Amino acid sequence: MSAQSLDGRAVADAIAERVAERVAALAVAPRLVFIRVGEDPASASYVRSKQRLAKRVGLRAETLVLAAETDQATLMIRVREIVADDDVDGVLVQLPLPDHLDEGPVLEAIDPDKDVDGFHAVNVGRLWSGQPGLVPCTPLGLEAICDHYQIALHGQRVVIVGRSNLVGKPAAALLLRRHATVTLAHSRTRDLGGLVAEADVVIAAVGRAGIVTGSMVRPGAAVLDVGMSRVDGRIVGDVAPDVWDVAGAVTPMPGGTGLVTVAMVVQNTVTAAERRRTTAR
Amino acid sequence: MSAQSLDGRAVADAIAERVAERVAALAVAPRLVFIRVGEDPASASYVRSKQRLAKRVGLRAETLVLAAETDQATLMIRVREIVADDDVDGVLVQLPLPDHLDEGPVLEAIDPDKDVDGFHAVNVGRLWSGQPGLVPCTPLGLEAICDHYQIALHGQRVVIVGRSNLVGKPAAALLLRRHATVTLAHSRTRDLGGLVAEADVVIAAVGRAGIVTGSMVRPGAAVLDVGMSRVDGRIVGDVAPDVWDVAGAVTPMPGGTGLVTVAMVVQNTVTAAERRRTTAR
Repeated sequence: MSAQSLDGRAVADAIAERVAERVAALAVAPRLVFIRVGEDPASASYVRSKQRLAKRVGLRAETLVLAAETDQATLMIRVREIVADDDVDGVLVQLPLPDHLDEGPVLEAIDPDKDVDGFHAVNVGRLWSGQPGLVPCTPLGLEAICDHYQIALHGQRVVIVGRSNLVGKPAAALLLRRHATVTLAHSRTRDLGGLVAEADVVIAAVGRAGIVTGSMVRPGAAVLDVGMSRVDGRIVGDVAPDVWDVAGAVTPMPGGTGLVTVAMVVQNTVTAAERRRTTAR
Repeated sequence: MSAQSLDGRAVADAIAERVAERVAALAVAPRLVFIRVGEDPASASYVRSKQRLAKRVGLRAETLVLAAETDQATLMIRVREIVADDDVDGVLVQLPLPDHLDEGPVLEAIDPDKDVDGFHAVNVGRLWSGQPGLVPCTPLGLEAICDHYQIALHGQRVVIVGRSNLVGKPAAALLLRRHATVTLAHSRTRDLGGLVAEADVVIAAVGRAGIVTGSMVRPGAAVLDVGMSRVDGRIVGDVAPDVWDVAGAVTPMPGGTGLVTVAMVVQNTVTAAERRRTTAR
Protein backbone atom coordinates (compact mmCIF):
# COMPACT_ATOMS: atom_id res chain seq x y z
CA MET A 1 0.00 0.00 0.00
CA SER A 2 2.72 2.49 -0.88
CA ALA A 3 1.08 4.15 -3.89
CA GLN A 4 -0.40 7.62 -3.67
CA SER A 5 -4.21 7.53 -3.81
CA LEU A 6 -5.53 9.69 -6.64
CA ASP A 7 -8.63 10.84 -4.84
CA GLY A 8 -11.40 11.56 -7.33
CA ARG A 9 -13.38 13.68 -4.88
CA ALA A 10 -10.71 16.40 -4.78
CA VAL A 11 -10.58 16.57 -8.57
CA ALA A 12 -14.36 16.58 -8.91
CA ASP A 13 -14.70 19.34 -6.31
CA ALA A 14 -12.13 21.52 -8.09
CA ILE A 15 -13.95 21.04 -11.40
CA ALA A 16 -17.34 21.74 -9.84
CA GLU A 17 -16.04 24.97 -8.37
CA ARG A 18 -14.79 26.21 -11.75
CA VAL A 19 -18.02 25.12 -13.45
CA ALA A 20 -20.10 26.98 -10.85
CA GLU A 21 -18.18 30.17 -11.65
CA ARG A 22 -18.84 29.73 -15.37
CA VAL A 23 -22.52 29.06 -14.72
CA ALA A 24 -22.78 32.18 -12.57
CA ALA A 25 -21.32 34.23 -15.41
CA LEU A 26 -24.19 33.30 -17.74
CA ALA A 27 -27.37 35.38 -17.82
CA VAL A 28 -29.54 32.26 -17.80
CA ALA A 29 -28.53 29.03 -16.08
CA PRO A 30 -27.83 26.18 -18.54
CA ARG A 31 -30.51 23.52 -18.63
CA LEU A 32 -29.64 19.81 -18.61
CA VAL A 33 -32.18 17.05 -19.22
CA PHE A 34 -31.50 13.43 -18.28
CA ILE A 35 -33.54 10.69 -19.95
CA ARG A 36 -33.73 7.37 -18.21
CA VAL A 37 -35.70 4.30 -19.31
CA GLY A 38 -36.80 1.70 -16.77
CA GLU A 39 -35.86 1.22 -13.15
CA ASP A 40 -32.35 -0.25 -13.23
CA PRO A 41 -31.11 0.72 -9.75
CA ALA A 42 -27.52 1.47 -10.88
CA SER A 43 -28.74 3.76 -13.68
CA ALA A 44 -31.15 5.50 -11.34
CA SER A 45 -28.33 6.05 -8.86
CA TYR A 46 -25.95 7.44 -11.53
CA VAL A 47 -28.55 9.86 -12.78
CA ARG A 48 -29.35 10.98 -9.25
CA SER A 49 -25.70 11.73 -8.52
CA LYS A 50 -25.28 13.64 -11.80
CA GLN A 51 -28.45 15.63 -11.17
CA ARG A 52 -27.36 16.41 -7.62
CA LEU A 53 -24.04 17.81 -8.81
CA ALA A 54 -25.78 19.69 -11.63
CA LYS A 55 -27.97 21.50 -9.10
CA ARG A 56 -25.02 22.16 -6.82
CA VAL A 57 -23.16 24.04 -9.58
CA GLY A 58 -26.27 26.06 -10.46
CA LEU A 59 -27.57 24.27 -13.54
CA ARG A 60 -31.23 23.72 -14.17
CA ALA A 61 -31.49 19.93 -14.24
CA GLU A 62 -34.38 17.54 -14.58
CA THR A 63 -34.86 13.86 -15.31
CA LEU A 64 -37.44 12.33 -17.61
CA VAL A 65 -38.11 8.75 -16.54
CA LEU A 66 -39.81 6.54 -19.13
CA ALA A 67 -41.35 3.16 -18.38
CA ALA A 68 -39.15 0.09 -18.97
CA GLU A 69 -41.53 -1.11 -21.70
CA THR A 70 -41.29 2.15 -23.73
CA ASP A 71 -40.89 1.24 -27.40
CA GLN A 72 -38.19 2.61 -29.72
CA ALA A 73 -40.53 4.93 -31.64
CA THR A 74 -41.89 6.53 -28.47
CA LEU A 75 -38.40 6.99 -27.05
CA MET A 76 -37.21 8.60 -30.29
CA ILE A 77 -40.14 11.03 -30.25
CA ARG A 78 -39.47 12.05 -26.65
CA VAL A 79 -35.73 12.47 -27.26
CA ARG A 80 -36.34 14.57 -30.38
CA GLU A 81 -38.83 16.78 -28.53
CA ILE A 82 -36.34 17.52 -25.79
CA VAL A 83 -33.44 18.02 -28.19
CA ALA A 84 -35.50 20.46 -30.27
CA ASP A 85 -36.33 22.63 -27.25
CA ASP A 86 -34.23 25.76 -27.65
CA ASP A 87 -34.17 26.25 -23.89
CA VAL A 88 -32.35 22.92 -23.41
CA ASP A 89 -28.53 23.09 -23.53
CA GLY A 90 -27.65 19.50 -22.74
CA VAL A 91 -29.32 16.11 -23.15
CA LEU A 92 -28.05 12.88 -21.63
CA VAL A 93 -29.67 9.50 -22.27
CA GLN A 94 -28.50 7.21 -19.50
CA LEU A 95 -27.09 3.93 -20.80
CA PRO A 96 -27.55 1.03 -20.91
CA LEU A 97 -31.08 1.07 -22.29
CA PRO A 98 -33.33 -1.97 -21.75
CA ASP A 99 -32.46 -4.81 -24.14
CA HIS A 100 -35.35 -4.26 -26.55
CA LEU A 101 -34.14 -0.72 -27.37
CA ASP A 102 -31.39 0.16 -29.86
CA GLU A 103 -29.16 2.90 -28.42
CA GLY A 104 -27.52 3.81 -31.77
CA PRO A 105 -30.40 5.80 -33.28
CA VAL A 106 -31.16 7.36 -29.90
CA LEU A 107 -27.65 8.74 -29.50
CA GLU A 108 -27.63 9.94 -33.13
CA ALA A 109 -30.91 11.82 -32.52
CA ILE A 110 -29.18 14.10 -30.02
CA ASP A 111 -27.98 17.40 -31.44
CA PRO A 112 -24.16 17.08 -31.35
CA ASP A 113 -23.98 20.53 -29.78
CA LYS A 114 -26.19 19.37 -26.87
CA ASP A 115 -24.57 15.93 -26.60
CA VAL A 116 -22.97 16.26 -23.17
CA ASP A 117 -21.95 12.59 -23.20
CA GLY A 118 -19.93 13.20 -26.39
CA PHE A 119 -21.08 9.90 -27.91
CA HIS A 120 -22.56 11.25 -31.18
CA ALA A 121 -20.55 10.20 -34.25
CA VAL A 122 -20.14 13.88 -35.15
CA ASN A 123 -18.45 14.54 -31.82
CA VAL A 124 -16.28 11.43 -32.25
CA GLY A 125 -15.22 12.79 -35.64
CA ARG A 126 -14.51 16.22 -34.21
CA LEU A 127 -12.40 14.74 -31.44
CA TRP A 128 -10.22 12.73 -33.83
CA SER A 129 -10.04 15.57 -36.35
CA GLY A 130 -8.95 18.13 -33.79
CA GLN A 131 -12.10 20.22 -34.14
CA PRO A 132 -13.97 21.69 -31.17
CA GLY A 133 -16.77 19.43 -29.96
CA LEU A 134 -18.03 17.70 -26.86
CA VAL A 135 -15.74 14.97 -25.54
CA PRO A 136 -16.89 11.88 -23.57
CA CYS A 137 -16.85 12.46 -19.83
CA THR A 138 -14.75 9.55 -18.59
CA PRO A 139 -11.73 10.31 -20.84
CA LEU A 140 -12.03 14.00 -19.95
CA GLY A 141 -11.99 12.94 -16.32
CA LEU A 142 -8.85 10.84 -16.80
CA GLU A 143 -7.09 13.84 -18.30
CA ALA A 144 -8.29 16.03 -15.43
CA ILE A 145 -6.99 13.58 -12.83
CA CYS A 146 -3.56 13.58 -14.50
CA ASP A 147 -3.53 17.37 -14.61
CA HIS A 148 -4.71 17.75 -11.01
CA TYR A 149 -2.04 15.42 -9.66
CA GLN A 150 0.62 16.63 -12.13
CA ILE A 151 1.05 13.27 -13.82
CA ALA A 152 3.06 13.96 -16.98
CA LEU A 153 1.53 12.99 -20.33
CA HIS A 154 3.78 14.75 -22.86
CA GLY A 155 6.06 12.15 -24.43
CA GLN A 156 4.97 9.49 -21.92
CA ARG A 157 3.99 5.93 -22.75
CA VAL A 158 0.28 5.45 -22.04
CA VAL A 159 -1.22 1.99 -22.32
CA ILE A 160 -5.01 1.86 -22.41
CA VAL A 161 -6.49 -1.56 -21.68
CA GLY A 162 -9.93 -1.68 -23.29
CA ARG A 163 -11.00 -0.21 -26.61
CA SER A 164 -14.60 0.79 -25.93
CA ASN A 165 -16.27 3.68 -27.74
CA LEU A 166 -17.08 5.22 -24.35
CA VAL A 167 -13.63 5.15 -22.76
CA GLY A 168 -10.67 3.50 -24.49
CA LYS A 169 -10.88 5.02 -27.94
CA PRO A 170 -11.75 8.60 -26.94
CA ALA A 171 -9.11 8.47 -24.19
CA ALA A 172 -6.57 7.56 -26.88
CA ALA A 173 -7.60 10.58 -28.94
CA LEU A 174 -7.45 12.92 -25.97
CA LEU A 175 -4.08 11.74 -24.66
CA LEU A 176 -2.62 11.78 -28.17
CA ARG A 177 -3.54 15.47 -28.26
CA ARG A 178 -1.50 15.81 -25.08
CA HIS A 179 1.44 14.26 -26.97
CA ALA A 180 1.46 10.94 -25.15
CA THR A 181 2.56 7.82 -27.05
CA VAL A 182 -0.62 5.80 -26.86
CA THR A 183 -1.21 2.05 -27.15
CA LEU A 184 -4.71 0.57 -27.27
CA ALA A 185 -4.76 -2.97 -25.87
CA HIS A 186 -7.75 -5.29 -25.61
CA SER A 187 -8.94 -8.88 -25.25
CA ARG A 188 -6.93 -10.05 -28.27
CA THR A 189 -3.67 -8.48 -27.09
CA ARG A 190 -0.88 -10.98 -26.58
CA ASP A 191 1.40 -10.51 -23.56
CA LEU A 192 -0.66 -7.84 -21.87
CA GLY A 193 1.75 -7.93 -18.96
CA GLY A 194 4.76 -7.08 -21.11
CA LEU A 195 2.88 -4.22 -22.68
CA VAL A 196 1.61 -2.75 -19.42
CA ALA A 197 5.13 -3.00 -18.01
CA GLU A 198 6.31 -0.37 -20.50
CA ALA A 199 3.71 2.21 -19.50
CA ASP A 200 4.26 5.37 -17.51
CA VAL A 201 0.48 5.67 -17.29
CA VAL A 202 -1.91 2.71 -17.37
CA ILE A 203 -5.62 3.12 -17.97
CA ALA A 204 -7.65 0.04 -17.10
CA ALA A 205 -11.05 0.19 -18.76
CA VAL A 206 -12.21 -3.32 -19.50
CA GLY A 207 -14.63 -4.22 -16.74
CA ARG A 208 -12.83 -7.41 -15.69
CA ALA A 209 -12.05 -7.47 -11.99
CA GLY A 210 -8.33 -7.26 -11.27
CA ILE A 211 -7.14 -7.73 -14.85
CA VAL A 212 -4.22 -5.35 -14.22
CA THR A 213 -2.01 -6.91 -11.55
CA GLY A 214 0.98 -5.77 -9.55
CA SER A 215 3.34 -8.02 -11.48
CA MET A 216 2.48 -6.18 -14.72
CA VAL A 217 2.99 -2.61 -13.58
CA ARG A 218 6.27 -0.73 -13.76
CA PRO A 219 7.32 0.56 -10.33
CA GLY A 220 6.22 4.16 -9.99
CA ALA A 221 3.67 4.14 -12.83
CA ALA A 222 0.31 5.90 -12.50
CA VAL A 223 -2.65 3.55 -12.79
CA LEU A 224 -6.14 4.86 -13.49
CA ASP A 225 -8.98 2.43 -12.91
CA VAL A 226 -12.19 2.82 -14.90
CA GLY A 227 -13.40 -0.79 -14.84
CA MET A 228 -16.25 -1.77 -12.57
CA SER A 229 -17.43 -5.27 -11.75
CA ARG A 230 -19.51 -6.70 -8.96
CA VAL A 231 -17.71 -9.47 -7.08
CA ASP A 232 -19.45 -11.06 -4.10
CA GLY A 233 -21.73 -8.05 -3.88
CA ARG A 234 -18.84 -5.57 -3.79
CA ILE A 235 -17.89 -3.12 -6.55
CA VAL A 236 -14.30 -3.78 -7.62
CA GLY A 237 -12.16 -2.26 -10.36
CA ASP A 238 -9.91 -3.63 -13.09
CA VAL A 239 -6.88 -2.94 -10.91
CA ALA A 240 -5.89 -5.72 -8.54
CA PRO A 241 -5.09 -4.77 -4.91
CA ASP A 242 -1.39 -5.70 -5.29
CA VAL A 243 -0.93 -2.88 -7.83
CA TRP A 244 -0.88 -0.50 -4.87
CA ASP A 245 2.38 -2.10 -3.70
CA VAL A 246 4.16 -1.33 -6.99
CA ALA A 247 2.60 1.69 -8.67
CA GLY A 248 3.44 5.29 -7.84
CA ALA A 249 -0.19 6.39 -7.84
CA VAL A 250 -3.56 4.65 -8.23
CA THR A 251 -7.16 5.81 -8.40
CA PRO A 252 -9.22 4.13 -5.68
CA MET A 253 -12.41 2.27 -6.57
CA PRO A 254 -14.87 3.59 -5.58
CA GLY A 255 -13.87 7.20 -5.02
CA GLY A 256 -11.70 7.59 -8.12
CA THR A 257 -12.48 8.07 -11.78
CA GLY A 258 -16.26 7.73 -11.44
CA LEU A 259 -16.63 10.89 -9.40
CA VAL A 260 -14.66 12.87 -11.96
CA THR A 261 -16.77 11.49 -14.81
CA VAL A 262 -19.84 12.95 -13.09
CA ALA A 263 -18.12 16.33 -12.78
CA MET A 264 -17.38 16.29 -16.52
CA VAL A 265 -21.09 15.98 -17.30
CA VAL A 266 -21.71 19.36 -15.71
CA GLN A 267 -18.56 20.81 -17.29
CA ASN A 268 -19.73 19.67 -20.74
CA THR A 269 -23.14 21.21 -20.07
CA VAL A 270 -21.75 24.65 -19.32
CA THR A 271 -19.40 24.34 -22.30
CA ALA A 272 -22.36 23.49 -24.55
CA ALA A 273 -24.38 26.41 -23.17
CA GLU A 274 -21.53 28.91 -23.57
CA ARG A 275 -21.02 27.86 -27.19
CA ARG A 276 -24.73 27.96 -28.02
CA ARG A 277 -25.02 31.42 -26.55
CA THR A 278 -22.05 32.89 -28.36
CA THR A 279 -23.13 31.53 -31.75
CA ALA A 280 -26.15 32.79 -33.72
CA ARG A 281 -29.31 32.78 -31.58
CA MET B 1 18.20 -7.00 -49.35
CA SER B 2 16.58 -10.15 -47.96
CA ALA B 3 13.08 -8.81 -47.28
CA GLN B 4 10.14 -9.68 -49.50
CA SER B 5 9.02 -6.71 -51.59
CA LEU B 6 5.35 -5.94 -51.00
CA ASP B 7 4.62 -4.86 -54.54
CA GLY B 8 1.82 -2.32 -54.59
CA ARG B 9 1.06 -2.86 -58.26
CA ALA B 10 -0.15 -6.43 -57.70
CA VAL B 11 -2.47 -5.31 -54.89
CA ALA B 12 -3.79 -2.35 -56.87
CA ASP B 13 -4.46 -4.53 -59.89
CA ALA B 14 -6.38 -7.07 -57.84
CA ILE B 15 -8.48 -4.29 -56.31
CA ALA B 16 -9.10 -2.66 -59.67
CA GLU B 17 -10.32 -5.96 -61.08
CA ARG B 18 -12.85 -6.42 -58.29
CA VAL B 19 -13.98 -2.79 -58.56
CA ALA B 20 -14.49 -3.15 -62.32
CA GLU B 21 -16.81 -6.09 -61.68
CA ARG B 22 -18.83 -4.08 -59.18
CA VAL B 23 -19.02 -1.14 -61.58
CA ALA B 24 -20.20 -3.42 -64.38
CA ALA B 25 -22.99 -4.69 -62.15
CA LEU B 26 -24.48 -1.22 -61.77
CA ALA B 27 -27.06 0.07 -64.27
CA VAL B 28 -25.32 3.44 -64.51
CA ALA B 29 -21.57 3.90 -64.10
CA PRO B 30 -20.64 5.79 -60.90
CA ARG B 31 -19.47 9.33 -61.50
CA LEU B 32 -16.39 10.74 -59.74
CA VAL B 33 -15.40 14.40 -59.85
CA PHE B 34 -11.91 15.60 -58.92
CA ILE B 35 -11.41 19.22 -57.96
CA ARG B 36 -7.92 20.62 -58.24
CA VAL B 37 -6.83 24.20 -57.53
CA GLY B 38 -3.72 25.62 -59.20
CA GLU B 39 -0.97 23.93 -61.13
CA ASP B 40 1.14 22.14 -58.54
CA PRO B 41 2.80 19.46 -60.69
CA ALA B 42 2.64 16.74 -58.01
CA SER B 43 -1.09 17.34 -57.45
CA ALA B 44 -1.75 17.35 -61.17
CA SER B 45 0.12 14.08 -61.52
CA TYR B 46 -1.79 12.43 -58.64
CA VAL B 47 -5.14 13.45 -60.04
CA ARG B 48 -4.15 12.20 -63.50
CA SER B 49 -3.23 8.78 -62.16
CA LYS B 50 -6.44 8.54 -60.15
CA GLN B 51 -8.53 9.59 -63.12
CA ARG B 52 -6.73 7.12 -65.37
CA LEU B 53 -7.52 4.24 -63.01
CA ALA B 54 -11.09 5.47 -62.58
CA LYS B 55 -11.64 5.24 -66.34
CA ARG B 56 -9.93 1.87 -66.51
CA VAL B 57 -12.43 0.38 -64.02
CA GLY B 58 -15.37 1.90 -65.88
CA LEU B 59 -16.19 4.94 -63.76
CA ARG B 60 -17.23 8.23 -65.29
CA ALA B 61 -14.48 10.56 -64.09
CA GLU B 62 -13.73 14.19 -64.73
CA THR B 63 -11.48 16.86 -63.22
CA LEU B 64 -12.44 20.44 -62.52
CA VAL B 65 -9.31 22.59 -62.50
CA LEU B 66 -9.64 25.98 -60.83
CA ALA B 67 -7.12 28.78 -61.15
CA ALA B 68 -4.48 29.05 -58.41
CA GLU B 69 -5.88 32.44 -57.39
CA THR B 70 -9.44 31.14 -56.83
CA ASP B 71 -10.77 32.60 -53.59
CA GLN B 72 -12.36 30.62 -50.75
CA ALA B 73 -15.92 31.74 -51.51
CA THR B 74 -15.69 30.79 -55.17
CA LEU B 75 -14.18 27.42 -54.33
CA MET B 76 -16.92 26.73 -51.78
CA ILE B 77 -19.61 27.56 -54.36
CA ARG B 78 -18.09 25.25 -56.96
CA VAL B 79 -17.65 22.41 -54.45
CA ARG B 80 -21.25 22.77 -53.23
CA GLU B 81 -22.59 22.77 -56.79
CA ILE B 82 -20.81 19.54 -57.60
CA VAL B 83 -21.73 17.90 -54.30
CA ALA B 84 -25.40 18.81 -54.81
CA ASP B 85 -25.53 17.20 -58.25
CA ASP B 86 -27.53 14.01 -57.79
CA ASP B 87 -25.67 12.38 -60.69
CA VAL B 88 -22.34 12.70 -58.85
CA ASP B 89 -21.41 9.77 -56.60
CA GLY B 90 -17.96 10.82 -55.45
CA VAL B 91 -16.13 14.12 -54.96
CA LEU B 92 -12.42 14.45 -54.24
CA VAL B 93 -10.72 17.77 -53.58
CA GLN B 94 -7.01 17.23 -54.16
CA LEU B 95 -4.86 18.43 -51.26
CA PRO B 96 -2.89 20.44 -50.50
CA LEU B 97 -4.76 23.56 -51.53
CA PRO B 98 -2.81 26.77 -52.24
CA ASP B 99 -1.79 28.51 -49.01
CA HIS B 100 -4.47 31.21 -49.12
CA LEU B 101 -7.26 28.61 -49.00
CA ASP B 102 -8.57 26.89 -45.85
CA GLU B 103 -9.15 23.21 -46.52
CA GLY B 104 -11.30 22.60 -43.39
CA PRO B 105 -14.54 24.17 -44.65
CA VAL B 106 -13.98 22.71 -48.12
CA LEU B 107 -13.75 19.17 -46.80
CA GLU B 108 -16.76 19.71 -44.54
CA ALA B 109 -18.80 20.94 -47.55
CA ILE B 110 -18.55 17.50 -49.15
CA ASP B 111 -21.55 15.24 -48.51
CA PRO B 112 -20.13 12.50 -46.23
CA ASP B 113 -21.78 9.89 -48.45
CA LYS B 114 -19.83 11.22 -51.50
CA ASP B 115 -16.60 11.81 -49.57
CA VAL B 116 -14.38 9.23 -51.30
CA ASP B 117 -11.32 10.52 -49.42
CA GLY B 118 -13.06 9.75 -46.09
CA PHE B 119 -11.78 12.99 -44.52
CA HIS B 120 -15.13 14.48 -43.45
CA ALA B 121 -15.54 14.59 -39.66
CA VAL B 122 -18.73 12.55 -40.00
CA ASN B 123 -16.78 9.75 -41.68
CA VAL B 124 -14.07 10.01 -39.05
CA GLY B 125 -16.76 9.60 -36.41
CA ARG B 126 -18.32 6.67 -38.19
CA LEU B 127 -14.94 4.94 -38.49
CA TRP B 128 -14.18 5.24 -34.79
CA SER B 129 -17.76 4.39 -33.78
CA GLY B 130 -17.86 1.24 -35.91
CA GLN B 131 -20.58 2.58 -38.21
CA PRO B 132 -20.52 2.16 -42.00
CA GLY B 133 -18.93 5.13 -43.75
CA LEU B 134 -16.16 5.99 -46.18
CA VAL B 135 -12.65 5.33 -44.87
CA PRO B 136 -9.50 7.22 -45.94
CA CYS B 137 -7.75 5.59 -48.87
CA THR B 138 -4.21 5.20 -47.57
CA PRO B 139 -5.21 3.28 -44.41
CA LEU B 140 -7.58 1.12 -46.49
CA GLY B 141 -4.64 0.44 -48.78
CA LEU B 142 -2.41 -0.59 -45.88
CA GLU B 143 -5.05 -3.07 -44.75
CA ALA B 144 -5.39 -4.37 -48.33
CA ILE B 145 -1.63 -4.89 -48.63
CA CYS B 146 -1.59 -6.91 -45.41
CA ASP B 147 -4.51 -9.01 -46.60
CA HIS B 148 -3.05 -9.55 -50.07
CA TYR B 149 0.28 -10.74 -48.70
CA GLN B 150 -1.31 -12.57 -45.75
CA ILE B 151 0.38 -10.46 -43.12
CA ALA B 152 -1.40 -11.27 -39.84
CA LEU B 153 -3.05 -8.44 -37.94
CA HIS B 154 -5.22 -10.23 -35.39
CA GLY B 155 -3.50 -9.98 -32.00
CA GLN B 156 -0.34 -8.55 -33.58
CA ARG B 157 1.60 -5.54 -32.34
CA VAL B 158 1.29 -2.71 -34.84
CA VAL B 159 3.31 0.46 -34.33
CA ILE B 160 2.24 3.43 -36.42
CA VAL B 161 4.82 6.20 -36.65
CA GLY B 162 2.98 9.42 -37.47
CA ARG B 163 -0.40 10.56 -36.14
CA SER B 164 -1.82 12.48 -39.07
CA ASN B 165 -5.55 12.76 -39.71
CA LEU B 166 -4.98 11.35 -43.18
CA VAL B 167 -2.98 8.24 -42.34
CA GLY B 168 -1.87 7.51 -38.79
CA LYS B 169 -5.09 8.01 -36.88
CA PRO B 170 -7.49 6.33 -39.34
CA ALA B 171 -5.00 3.46 -39.78
CA ALA B 172 -5.14 2.97 -36.00
CA ALA B 173 -8.94 2.78 -36.12
CA LEU B 174 -8.93 0.35 -39.01
CA LEU B 175 -6.28 -1.99 -37.59
CA LEU B 176 -7.92 -1.93 -34.18
CA ARG B 177 -11.05 -3.26 -35.91
CA ARG B 178 -8.86 -6.08 -37.18
CA HIS B 179 -7.92 -6.80 -33.55
CA ALA B 180 -4.34 -5.58 -33.74
CA THR B 181 -2.77 -4.04 -30.64
CA VAL B 182 -2.06 -0.56 -31.94
CA THR B 183 0.45 2.07 -30.80
CA LEU B 184 0.48 5.59 -32.23
CA ALA B 185 3.95 7.11 -32.09
CA HIS B 186 5.00 10.57 -33.21
CA SER B 187 7.56 13.33 -32.96
CA ARG B 188 7.29 13.51 -29.15
CA THR B 189 7.73 9.78 -28.66
CA ARG B 190 10.76 8.88 -26.55
CA ASP B 191 12.80 5.85 -27.61
CA LEU B 192 11.17 5.34 -30.99
CA GLY B 193 13.63 2.57 -31.69
CA GLY B 194 12.64 0.57 -28.64
CA LEU B 195 9.00 0.93 -29.55
CA VAL B 196 9.41 -0.04 -33.20
CA ALA B 197 11.46 -3.06 -32.10
CA GLU B 198 8.35 -4.55 -30.46
CA ALA B 199 6.23 -4.36 -33.60
CA ASP B 200 5.15 -7.22 -35.82
CA VAL B 201 3.94 -4.60 -38.29
CA VAL B 202 5.45 -1.12 -38.62
CA ILE B 203 3.69 1.67 -40.49
CA ALA B 204 5.95 4.62 -41.27
CA ALA B 205 3.86 7.67 -42.09
CA VAL B 206 5.74 10.76 -41.01
CA GLY B 207 7.33 12.14 -44.16
CA ARG B 208 10.88 12.18 -42.80
CA ALA B 209 13.30 10.36 -45.04
CA GLY B 210 14.66 7.18 -43.48
CA ILE B 211 13.27 7.78 -39.97
CA VAL B 212 12.70 4.03 -39.53
CA THR B 213 16.07 2.30 -39.68
CA GLY B 214 17.25 -1.29 -39.79
CA SER B 215 18.54 -1.15 -36.23
CA MET B 216 15.00 -0.40 -34.98
CA VAL B 217 13.13 -3.16 -36.73
CA ARG B 218 12.56 -6.64 -35.32
CA PRO B 219 13.88 -9.33 -37.69
CA GLY B 220 11.03 -10.60 -39.81
CA ALA B 221 8.66 -7.71 -39.20
CA ALA B 222 6.52 -6.26 -41.99
CA VAL B 223 7.26 -2.59 -42.71
CA LEU B 224 4.82 -0.44 -44.68
CA ASP B 225 6.19 2.85 -45.94
CA VAL B 226 3.79 5.74 -46.49
CA GLY B 227 6.19 8.66 -46.03
CA MET B 228 7.44 10.57 -49.02
CA SER B 229 10.23 13.11 -49.14
CA ARG B 230 12.29 14.53 -51.92
CA VAL B 231 16.03 14.08 -51.29
CA ASP B 232 18.49 15.25 -53.96
CA GLY B 233 15.67 15.19 -56.48
CA ARG B 234 14.67 11.62 -55.69
CA ILE B 235 11.48 10.49 -53.94
CA VAL B 236 12.40 8.52 -50.83
CA GLY B 237 10.30 6.98 -48.10
CA ASP B 238 10.38 6.98 -44.30
CA VAL B 239 12.03 3.57 -44.37
CA ALA B 240 15.83 3.55 -44.59
CA PRO B 241 17.45 1.15 -47.08
CA ASP B 242 19.02 -0.98 -44.34
CA VAL B 243 15.53 -2.04 -43.17
CA TRP B 244 15.48 -4.41 -46.14
CA ASP B 245 18.31 -6.39 -44.51
CA VAL B 246 16.32 -7.03 -41.34
CA ALA B 247 12.61 -6.96 -42.04
CA GLY B 248 10.63 -9.87 -43.40
CA ALA B 249 8.72 -7.75 -45.88
CA VAL B 250 8.81 -4.09 -46.97
CA THR B 251 6.78 -1.95 -49.36
CA PRO B 252 9.05 -0.38 -52.00
CA MET B 253 9.02 3.37 -52.57
CA PRO B 254 7.87 4.14 -55.19
CA GLY B 255 5.75 1.19 -56.25
CA GLY B 256 4.29 0.40 -52.83
CA THR B 257 1.56 1.98 -50.76
CA GLY B 258 0.89 4.90 -53.11
CA LEU B 259 -0.43 2.71 -55.90
CA VAL B 260 -2.83 1.01 -53.53
CA THR B 261 -4.07 4.36 -52.21
CA VAL B 262 -5.08 5.27 -55.75
CA ALA B 263 -6.95 1.97 -56.13
CA MET B 264 -8.87 2.72 -52.94
CA VAL B 265 -10.19 5.97 -54.43
CA VAL B 266 -12.03 4.00 -57.10
CA GLN B 267 -13.10 1.36 -54.58
CA ASN B 268 -14.60 4.05 -52.35
CA THR B 269 -16.39 5.54 -55.36
CA VAL B 270 -18.15 2.32 -56.25
CA THR B 271 -18.94 1.75 -52.57
CA ALA B 272 -20.49 5.22 -52.37
CA ALA B 273 -22.48 4.63 -55.55
CA GLU B 274 -23.77 1.24 -54.43
CA ARG B 275 -24.94 2.67 -51.12
CA ARG B 276 -26.59 5.72 -52.70
CA ARG B 277 -28.46 3.50 -55.13
CA THR B 278 -29.73 1.07 -52.55
CA THR B 279 -31.00 3.80 -50.23
CA ALA B 280 -33.96 6.08 -50.92
CA ARG B 281 -33.66 7.77 -54.28
